[in-house]
Amino acid sequence: MTVTVVGSIAFDAVKTPFGERERLLGGAATHFALAASFLDQVRVVGPVGCDFGPEDFAVLRTRGTNTDDVRQVIDGKTFFWRGEYGWDLNSRETLDTQLNVFADFRPELSAAARESEVVFLANIQPGLQLEVLEQCLRPRAVALDSMNFWIETDREALLEVVGRVDCLILNDAELRQLTGRPSVYTAARELLELGPRVVVAKQGEYGALAITESSYFGLPAYPLERVVDPTGAGDTFAGGLVGYLARSGATELSDDVVRRAMAYGTALASFNVEGFGTERMVELTPAEIEQRVHDLHRFTQFEHDPMVAAA
Amino acid sequence: MTVTVVGSIAFDAVKTPFGERERLLGGAATHFALAASFLDQVRVVGPVGCDFGPEDFAVLRTRGTNTDDVRQVIDGKTFFWRGEYGWDLNSRETLDTQLNVFADFRPELSAAARESEVVFLANIQPGLQLEVLEQCLRPRAVALDSMNFWIETDREALLEVVGRVDCLILNDAELRQLTGRPSVYTAARELLELGPRVVVAKQGEYGALAITESSYFGLPAYPLERVVDPTGAGDTFAGGLVGYLARSGATELSDDVVRRAMAYGTALASFNVEGFGTERMVELTPAEIEQRVHDLHRFTQFEHDPMVAAA
Repeated sequence: MTVTVVGSIAFDAVKTPFGERERLLGGAATHFALAASFLDQVRVVGPVGCDFGPEDFAVLRTRGTNTDDVRQVIDGKTFFWRGEYGWDLNSRETLDTQLNVFADFRPELSAAARESEVVFLANIQPGLQLEVLEQCLRPRAVALDSMNFWIETDREALLEVVGRVDCLILNDAELRQLTGRPSVYTAARELLELGPRVVVAKQGEYGALAITESSYFGLPAYPLERVVDPTGAGDTFAGGLVGYLARSGATELSDDVVRRAMAYGTALASFNVEGFGTERMVELTPAEIEQRVHDLHRFTQFEHDPMVAAA
Repeated sequence: MTVTVVGSIAFDAVKTPFGERERLLGGAATHFALAASFLDQVRVVGPVGCDFGPEDFAVLRTRGTNTDDVRQVIDGKTFFWRGEYGWDLNSRETLDTQLNVFADFRPELSAAARESEVVFLANIQPGLQLEVLEQCLRPRAVALDSMNFWIETDREALLEVVGRVDCLILNDAELRQLTGRPSVYTAARELLELGPRVVVAKQGEYGALAITESSYFGLPAYPLERVVDPTGAGDTFAGGLVGYLARSGATELSDDVVRRAMAYGTALASFNVEGFGTERMVELTPAEIEQRVHDLHRFTQFEHDPMVAAA
């Protein structure tokens, strides 16, 4: 199948306890594509500026990702974000955001993109996400991300998009904020009633949850000695998860498939944070991914041998 | 085997979004005993005041817990704590702490307590924890809890205790603070070198990790629609975990046993937070516990079917 991602392509300036970089290729669509491209054919939709060079396009095209729908605005500059992380990398501060070409972005999908069986609506204005959905002809599965800013400023439109997707992927804090429910589990159950077949709660360094009408799945994060740059971890996770769904057929979203998709998302995200920007993801190999999925399996399995009741 | 817990017995005044209570039986030793008593014979060591009534003793003695080592100080009052939780129950503020009889507490174990095969050193001053260890004759397994206050004010003594126990149970933030390592995994690995055979990282609503020299295990928390009062969740978790180790023989702390112990700790903690104080734990049944351990198994298992490498 083909996975189309619509979202930001950016240059990031990042400072973490392990160093700083002034110009990293980033953005949700970039991180998503670098992960999903291990699993299926990816197509990126988004705008870049005249400062976006051939070497940046080359990274986006890693593992065959199609960039025909990346529109280069000749008199504009690429979206720019600057941020700094605290010592344990769980807190971050945004120091600068320049929307640049993203300010006037209106998605216009090519004929090929409209045919995509699987679509990932990365975090952009909910109205634009709806415009993308209107253009898709017959997607078998649509996944959605968003952020606190849209929950605060454009809640109704966001809920309308939520009602039209198959898989909602948000941070646990965003799920709480969107529903006003302190329990992430309750929040997810409520959102399932709006339409999605699965709600995924990202929990950062702790892992992720997948909740469906009939099933609950929790997976801890992959343990790392050193997190160099967490930027893009969530989109990389989504890339692994949605990429796996696409590769598996993605029509049913069975419990088994969702669980394995979570494992690929988790493994891929663990690599992304080991380097600045796209460094680690560009050099990553399939065998390394399989090894970490295998490790995650070892790290989480246990036998239940009833003991208390027999007391 | 017999599990002896040395720690606080308290009255708590608690306010959460679901209500407030002025006088709840609480304290680390109480919460620990109510959980561990499902799995093995428990003995409590700690001081109470003249305000500690027969009905409080009756709760402590639930499921046969021995209170011969609970010393009642006739001219003193029981340790008192008052706290209030935020709307999502992840933040809490201590409004009042009155040490009362706990201020002068020096543990003196009875002959029977000294014979205990398994010991849980709940969160008290590290020097007192060492005094307990000096009195124990031949424990097969000792588990330890502590808190940020002792890490800040009595770090050397705490590290000495860490070096003499088999199982260290701390919050992830405490592991970071104790070692100065931003990675919980790295922190745990460093602490293993001091002596413990297993380091457990409690992650609150997210779950818990168990790290040994040769193994890593992560278990998400049990999903709950409603958390009424999180007070004592960590000690209840420790009670299930250490109780299971005792029940299993506790000599080897094999990977399989540790994983199952984590599941019992997680299941028991999930019940504790469903009611104020000891409400839920007093009425709990073994069958309910087994059901949640069974659920945790269902919530966490997945098949790894290599896919990327075959691409």
